[in-house]
Amino acid sequence: MRNIRMLIQYEGTRYLGWQRQEASDSTIQGKLEKLLSQMCQEPIEVQGSGRTDAGVHAKGQVANFHTSCDLSTDEMLAYCNRYLPEDIAVIDIAEVPERFHSRLNAKEKCYCYQVINSGIPDVFLRRYAVLAAEKLDVDAMRRAAAYFCGEHDFKGFTSNRRMKKSSVRRIEELSITKEGDLLRFTFRGDGFLYHMIRIIMGTLLEVGSGKRRPESMEALIQSGKRELAGPLAPAKGLTLMEVKY
Amino acid sequence: MRNIRMLIQYEGTRYLGWQRQEASDSTIQGKLEKLLSQMCQEPIEVQGSGRTDAGVHAKGQVANFHTSCDLSTDEMLAYCNRYLPEDIAVIDIAEVPERFHSRLNAKEKCYCYQVINSGIPDVFLRRYAVLAAEKLDVDAMRRAAAYFCGEHDFKGFTSNRRMKKSSVRRIEELSITKEGDLLRFTFRGDGFLYHMIRIIMGTLLEVGSGKRRPESMEALIQSGKRELAGPLAPAKGLTLMEVKY
Repeated sequence: MRNIRMLIQYEGTRYLGWQRQEASDSTIQGKLEKLLSQMCQEPIEVQGSGRTDAGVHAKGQVANFHTSCDLSTDEMLAYCNRYLPEDIAVIDIAEVPERFHSRLNAKEKCYCYQVINSGIPDVFLRRYAVLAAEKLDVDAMRRAAAYFCGEHDFKGFTSNRRMKKSSVRRIEELSITKEGDLLRFTFRGDGFLYHMIRIIMGTLLEVGSGKRRPESMEALIQSGKRELAGPLAPAKGLTLMEVKY
Repeated sequence: MRNIRMLIQYEGTRYLGWQRQEASDSTIQGKLEKLLSQMCQEPIEVQGSGRTDAGVHAKGQVANFHTSCDLSTDEMLAYCNRYLPEDIAVIDIAEVPERFHSRLNAKEKCYCYQVINSGIPDVFLRRYAVLAAEKLDVDAMRRAAAYFCGEHDFKGFTSNRRMKKSSVRRIEELSITKEGDLLRFTFRGDGFLYHMIRIIMGTLLEVGSGKRRPESMEALIQSGKRELAGPLAPAKGLTLMEVKY
């Protein structure tokens, strides 16, 4: 069996998220598996580096699948982009060693969350950024962000209420850049819990609008209580940028 | 009567272009006039700096209208962005002197045309850029572009077959920047004829793929013959960036 790795882009707007769902043609994984099964003339199961929520985008999702078909990777790439809907693209395909596993071998993930800090909508970013009309204090958000960096138990920052596995994660970077009205939050770490980035974002936006003090983050993280953290920020602002191995 | 100037953004994908059409709700001007007439409680006619074709986008279209309503410009801005569809936004509104005319007073326009020089589609630029799979010679296109700069009779570069007015225009800048696979063509000039930029683009892309020599541009422009120029490049790659007064 050959092991094939794909680099995938998608606009999540129309989809119920990455993960395949029974009787639904509206997931990225489902779309890919259907197409690859046709291409390879055998049932194909695609393993992603991780799930993305409904409405979340990806510029660098990684997935792999096993197949016995003998198409070249160039032929596969052309086939995929010919038949995929226009909001999903495979931007690279390579044959990799049998042991490569896109989820288990992932070392680091990088996500970007975009906020337009203006009352004026941006037509060209409307699917990829959220609008925050109230003037945000970027410096306060930067100070708050620093508390999330490093290794912490993020059990208060997930919607998964009864985690069986560890909820300890390491955030290497949580930085904010400003370009005009556009704020870009970069999250880089060894992995993120279900909804973790969006709950941290909901919390940081409350810091930005003065509802929370940056210094309150330490006790908040230690509390481990979801109900003390901020709201879940909208999915559309979030994009999976890169997975490192 | 007050004279109101608006700065407007739109994604042209869904529209039949800027210019109002009888019995169609699918033009930008038509959408704006309908909304502004409701807002002002009187019939409003909107004058744009110029038409854009079906499918062409704008980041900085300028338009003005006259009204006797007494709303503040802030109230107008909020009203517009509350009721406009999400692919049109008014990003600035100001009251201007009675004599200001968005089309007659325009001194310079700047457009951008985007080309992805790759066989791999880009999900996030699919509405704003065209795909050119064949490797383009950027240097040859730059040399060809230089022939279009300055003042010329562009009558071979318009779809308007019987122009009554002058077809002489001055192009101040036609530059090409490259960022990875993305090529950005910047057109800056005192005005552009109907389809002029898209026909120049169709011609430059033929230079880029080796079908024409850069040096053939001089005779081509002098010929004044539409049938000797390249094909009309797709609308979706084109965006009106700025109008100067």
